[in-house]
Amino acid sequence: MAEITFVDVTLRDGNHTYKHQFTSDIVAKTAEALDAAGVDIIEVGHGDGLGGSTVHVGRTPEPAINLIRAACNAVKRARVGILLLPGFGVFRDLEECKEVGVSVARIASHATEADTTKQHIRKANDLGMFTVGYLISAGMADAKTLAEEARKLESYGAGYINLAESQGHLVPSEVAERVRAVRQAVSIPVGFHPHNNLGLANGNILAAIDEGASYIDASLKGFGGGAGNAQTEATVAALKRAGHTVKADLGGILDAAKVFGDLVAPYPMPVIDNDSIMMGYANVYGGYVLPVKQSAEKYGISPRELILRLGARKVVAGQEDAVEQEALALSAERFSAAS
Amino acid sequence: MAEITFVDVTLRDGNHTYKHQFTSDIVAKTAEALDAAGVDIIEVGHGDGLGGSTVHVGRTPEPAINLIRAACNAVKRARVGILLLPGFGVFRDLEECKEVGVSVARIASHATEADTTKQHIRKANDLGMFTVGYLISAGMADAKTLAEEARKLESYGAGYINLAESQGHLVPSEVAERVRAVRQAVSIPVGFHPHNNLGLANGNILAAIDEGASYIDASLKGFGGGAGNAQTEATVAALKRAGHTVKADLGGILDAAKVFGDLVAPYPMPVIDNDSIMMGYANVYGGYVLPVKQSAEKYGISPRELILRLGARKVVAGQEDAVEQEALALSAERFSAAS
Repeated sequence: MAEITFVDVTLRDGNHTYKHQFTSDIVAKTAEALDAAGVDIIEVGHGDGLGGSTVHVGRTPEPAINLIRAACNAVKRARVGILLLPGFGVFRDLEECKEVGVSVARIASHATEADTTKQHIRKANDLGMFTVGYLISAGMADAKTLAEEARKLESYGAGYINLAESQGHLVPSEVAERVRAVRQAVSIPVGFHPHNNLGLANGNILAAIDEGASYIDASLKGFGGGAGNAQTEATVAALKRAGHTVKADLGGILDAAKVFGDLVAPYPMPVIDNDSIMMGYANVYGGYVLPVKQSAEKYGISPRELILRLGARKVVAGQEDAVEQEALALSAERFSAAS
Repeated sequence: MAEITFVDVTLRDGNHTYKHQFTSDIVAKTAEALDAAGVDIIEVGHGDGLGGSTVHVGRTPEPAINLIRAACNAVKRARVGILLLPGFGVFRDLEECKEVGVSVARIASHATEADTTKQHIRKANDLGMFTVGYLISAGMADAKTLAEEARKLESYGAGYINLAESQGHLVPSEVAERVRAVRQAVSIPVGFHPHNNLGLANGNILAAIDEGASYIDASLKGFGGGAGNAQTEATVAALKRAGHTVKADLGGILDAAKVFGDLVAPYPMPVIDNDSIMMGYANVYGGYVLPVKQSAEKYGISPRELILRLGARKVVAGQEDAVEQEALALSAERFSAAS
């Protein structure tokens, strides 16, 4: 049975569900409750991390550093963490976070682009932070590739490797294979961050732990991108039932879920809808839902077929132009088949 | 990789979520969509099965046989099934079901009480139905006991054994152990019916299949008792992703989810709330939530502590008097500790 470091990402990934409108008040009260429950690390910020507050994705109602400071001031035992994607976030953001009391920096890239994180991992280490190499869309890379990327992150100075399965595409056996490969490749710990598109977030967490993962991400009420994250309160209960050690206390976690739920009410919990399932099934990033609907309508084609095409093309976030291209191609094929 | 017979229980177990108010119209349209999608068996009726329509639990708005007939008339390929708990349901109910076209009878008992199903399994077989031995609260019995009960069901003439993990208490390794034991004990197939209290419904299904389970229960939008069932559309996607064969077509299933969702709108999907988690964690039947709340308030004690006591006492549905007894005991202990 494993000893788990529990990372609650409600106040960062959960901001996606809340359209990035978390306030200092929501952050302070939720962080206080999570801290009282015994959560190890509390991640805070815009859904896309430092520098993520943009007109395109959604702006935070106050500067993100205010949210982060509110969390740092609210906790007694937990460490406060941030997520940074180089390009969105810059060195100055890390310095500012350090100044307000952040002690964990997770530096993220697409699963195959670990080398973009080198400078920021070093900078965070220089600032004395506990630094994490965070691989997004880990279900888009095979086990061997993830192992190679993880080796790079370790060489840059990462304290652990976090595999973020952003599309909720993998089944437990596939998660197990990837965690195993990364564990064998590096001497630092491995963490796992699932999404729930196929209802497998907790099943995948238990499979990851069976292969040695020891840092687990989840969020209260499952708040998080797409179909949501693993749901902290259900995850803690499942971990304890499976015999793993997690410092957080179940009663305290249920209290925190109530505090957070009341603060964001009447906002509903994320559920698994048809769009989430198709995105998870086809391994396509959740941000493609809207462009797919628009292009499918424009060209009179099936949105599901379009999603499968995008999955086969292995599109990543930021390549939304591909939607129009694939829609055009599908439409042309249909026209040629009919004539 | 396994070949799965898919049993959709939306129109029976899902009736719990809808307070047993499904109409013939909802049943006919949903069954038609599930049939078109290629689902193998469609279970219909009151949430508690034949004879379950009572003032205490909730009455169906029209006789349950009307719902069942509506499903039989709506399908072209799928078989229509019912659930019967001897005592609630009687021989005459089975005959009536046979007359309207039901071909699958699942005869249920608490996991340790298989012998109560003998007469009804024989009766259903005599009527020419495909008959299933259905063990409720399978997480309350250990693997050895389930194997013994399964042997009895086989000797009565059951066509397969269905393990219903009604409290959503088990983790995948525990499901695997139970399915393995039952598979070794009988020569008929084994099925699995999870609940989602700890977010493990689909993870547990995949674990059950890895041990040879070949009949799987789930429901559209996760409608079902407590935190709900496995969600048919996510389950079908997960089964296909895991490489298993399931006749149902994912596109058709997503269409059926839309049809059903529109029919029951604005009814929300079940979510995993704090009560569901405590019930799942402590292995207590969902029907205890309300009596627990009432007694906890009356005696000024912690509802969570009360639930844990009920779990330790291994209460089953129908023993709700135990709530008051345990609440009194807890209250007395608190008084004696304070004085």
